[in-house]
Amino acid sequence: MAEKTSTYYIGRLDGFQARERARRWGGSWGSRLKMSHFPVSAMSPIDQYLDSHAERFEDELCELLRIPSISAQPDRRDDLRRTAEWVADQFRRLRFDVEIIPTDGHPLVFAQSPTVPDAPTALVYGHYDVQPVEPLDQWISPPFEPTRRDGNLYARGATDDKGQMFTHIKSAEAWMTVEGRLPINLKYLIEGEEEVGSHGLEHYLAQHADRLACDCVVISDGSQFAPGIPAITYGLRGIACYELRVHGPNRDLHSGSFGGSVTNPAIALTKILAGLIDHKSRITIPGFYDDVVPLSDREREAMAAMPFDEKHYFEQIGVAEAMGEEGYTALERRWARPTFDISGLTSGYQGEGAKTVLPATASAKFSFRLVPNQDTAKITSGLKWRLAELCLPGVELELIDQHGSPGVLASLDSPAMAAAARAIEHAFGRPPVYTREGGSIPIVTAFSKQLKTDTLLIGWGQDDDNTHSPNEKISLADFHRGIRASARLWEELAK
Amino acid sequence: MAEKTSTYYIGRLDGFQARERARRWGGSWGSRLKMSHFPVSAMSPIDQYLDSHAERFEDELCELLRIPSISAQPDRRDDLRRTAEWVADQFRRLRFDVEIIPTDGHPLVFAQSPTVPDAPTALVYGHYDVQPVEPLDQWISPPFEPTRRDGNLYARGATDDKGQMFTHIKSAEAWMTVEGRLPINLKYLIEGEEEVGSHGLEHYLAQHADRLACDCVVISDGSQFAPGIPAITYGLRGIACYELRVHGPNRDLHSGSFGGSVTNPAIALTKILAGLIDHKSRITIPGFYDDVVPLSDREREAMAAMPFDEKHYFEQIGVAEAMGEEGYTALERRWARPTFDISGLTSGYQGEGAKTVLPATASAKFSFRLVPNQDTAKITSGLKWRLAELCLPGVELELIDQHGSPGVLASLDSPAMAAAARAIEHAFGRPPVYTREGGSIPIVTAFSKQLKTDTLLIGWGQDDDNTHSPNEKISLADFHRGIRASARLWEELAK
Repeated sequence: MAEKTSTYYIGRLDGFQARERARRWGGSWGSRLKMSHFPVSAMSPIDQYLDSHAERFEDELCELLRIPSISAQPDRRDDLRRTAEWVADQFRRLRFDVEIIPTDGHPLVFAQSPTVPDAPTALVYGHYDVQPVEPLDQWISPPFEPTRRDGNLYARGATDDKGQMFTHIKSAEAWMTVEGRLPINLKYLIEGEEEVGSHGLEHYLAQHADRLACDCVVISDGSQFAPGIPAITYGLRGIACYELRVHGPNRDLHSGSFGGSVTNPAIALTKILAGLIDHKSRITIPGFYDDVVPLSDREREAMAAMPFDEKHYFEQIGVAEAMGEEGYTALERRWARPTFDISGLTSGYQGEGAKTVLPATASAKFSFRLVPNQDTAKITSGLKWRLAELCLPGVELELIDQHGSPGVLASLDSPAMAAAARAIEHAFGRPPVYTREGGSIPIVTAFSKQLKTDTLLIGWGQDDDNTHSPNEKISLADFHRGIRASARLWEELAK
Repeated sequence: MAEKTSTYYIGRLDGFQARERARRWGGSWGSRLKMSHFPVSAMSPIDQYLDSHAERFEDELCELLRIPSISAQPDRRDDLRRTAEWVADQFRRLRFDVEIIPTDGHPLVFAQSPTVPDAPTALVYGHYDVQPVEPLDQWISPPFEPTRRDGNLYARGATDDKGQMFTHIKSAEAWMTVEGRLPINLKYLIEGEEEVGSHGLEHYLAQHADRLACDCVVISDGSQFAPGIPAITYGLRGIACYELRVHGPNRDLHSGSFGGSVTNPAIALTKILAGLIDHKSRITIPGFYDDVVPLSDREREAMAAMPFDEKHYFEQIGVAEAMGEEGYTALERRWARPTFDISGLTSGYQGEGAKTVLPATASAKFSFRLVPNQDTAKITSGLKWRLAELCLPGVELELIDQHGSPGVLASLDSPAMAAAARAIEHAFGRPPVYTREGGSIPIVTAFSKQLKTDTLLIGWGQDDDNTHSPNEKISLADFHRGIRASARLWEELAK
């Protein structure tokens, strides 16, 4: 009666072999495209200024990057304050109105350019705080000693977000120096708590939406689609997060003595969760798809034309076969379709070996990614109805509605979108692709809600910039193209 | 955008209210029946001996109970050895052949009564080790200071198993003293590792089955059906335990960026587990029920006649509604039908709040309780087939076969069973009920396999004896009735 343990690998078709193959493939994400260069003919005075001050801009960025403004670490409070002062000083040099606004956490920097009557107003959002730097031993050069290597600048915050945010300050400098004025009204809101939840900003935004009023919000805190392929992100998914707890007997029971006569909460949980999504990966909550904004033909065509290599995508994450909602491509599923995901399962015995227990409870954390127009309250209400329908006799359900925020979708046809596209083409030598993002950016949702305006999400970074990881970097070419695009954006928005 | 957390309680019908009601009910398990007393007329000399030495038997049991033979605690090794010696000494006084057999753990005590030619042989199994005693502050009297209260003797090991095992030694003493001989051949195998896995015994049994050869095994290490209702347990379920691991992407993914395009291993796991059992609580593995020995009409009638109060049963465990395989009562489901239970679920994020992760893996521990004739190897093979059928694209399955043992069913019509029934009726004043047990007792399975003989499971304990808990006890009336039944059993088995 010694225990015999055997392990079997069971693949759908030859799944295990496919997994092994996937491991061997390795492979990197996509192929690198050759970077384009500035079109040097017919340079405007603004562009000439940017070109001739490029090295100083880099040096100034290095100065900013040297301040270890790690918002998560309480003993860095003075460094955060110093960074806010440094940023405010940049605006003072441009003779902007500047205010350092205290919060319960780290201060906000708010700046306004001199008024240009009858011109539109853009609000630039960015953040001066950075992520922690551990593990330190994996950094090739120290995180707060900015170092140039292979056309990149390495430092914590280089791309997220000091480097990107700074492009919108230098573009304003060019205008103020060369032309003595900006073509539009600019407001800047630069926070120091983005990496720890933006609580101070959200509080301020809820109370001072009037002061932040604008025609569009501009954010550069993300990535291009791929090297050499700049992008404008016009849609974000929303989210609705829940925890479901299934309560069965009043204590863990012996599965031998009781098994078969009592509803097993873990079985009830699997039945309920499995019942929330059908074999076509469609969510079975009544009315779930009613308000979904369908993908337009134009969007589907644009997504199909993206240089998105599904094979490389799945190889990179070690998945042998695609799966998802029937009738959609992987990119459409990620960007523009609502989804159901389980993020955690907990029940009974989780240690080594076996324990013959019939657990008293079982719980799951799960979320729906929502697309624009889905309403979180309606989703919760439909979910409750469906859970009651799926519940088994002998257990009770407890649903915890953790949080939710709606999806965001900017119009592709707005003047601001067209202005951004022209500005990007001017700087990057090719028009941007229009992307959506599967995740949520809470601050964009908040701007959308409080300021009733679209956000231009124009990231200058790259997917391999090591955001939040050791050896964070920004491509210096992207940094300068970002400044040039920003400078042109002010002009285009004025048209 | 502050997080708003709401909690909903969702019951099937008015499940939550039912749960609250169940809490208020409280209620104890079943009603206490009045104990029967010895029929005092026409006492045999054996019974007269037992009666007149009753107090000494209790004192000797107290002596045995004072030795803290906790097998799980390494520093008790000498106490275990001392207990084995004490037990061996009991046999020496009866002039039995005795051997203390060393094992890698605590020793076995093996004893044989003087040979009675042409008489059958019974092997008595018991154990002299006990469970740990924590939490100590919940004991009314100290665990190793045996104390009489309200007709019970309180001490660790009082019922499990020192007190019950000792009945079969005192019954032999009565025969040897009064008659100078036993009516049958007795072998005793008393181990010191039952509470820690019986490894030494299993090893010995596999190598010395010939020495242990017998016509039946006798074990008193369990409970009567209820106070005043003695029982013979003639069936045990087997078990097959597994762990299933679902492997998806090569790392946890962001559910926003990737969700919808990649099979979520936790969803795949819930789909697979939910698919192993249908809405009638029937297991969907092909061939699963092929070898199940169906309940006979006689068994179903006997079970229906049991004083088993389903309402009290479910109240006691706080369950508002029964559920289980269609067409069977709760008792039948527990004792005689195979079942599927999930004992553990693990995946993704299990901490407070939400984390928007698409987990790389998800796993479950689960088991099937098997009934006689189901074969664990066939179950595993069918399970593998079914898992491959239920697997989703984009994940791979790893199945760990943890351990299994078949069910055991003794014939209700054997001479030994009839002998035990007569002996029990003699001592308890009423015939036993015939019960099955939902759990497995590995040592019974091992005896069945190695000795090819039936086991008489005749427990003298009660469900409320606090086995493995503080304030373990044995009813002194049950202790003495057990000795009397045992003494009569030797005689009845000889017939």
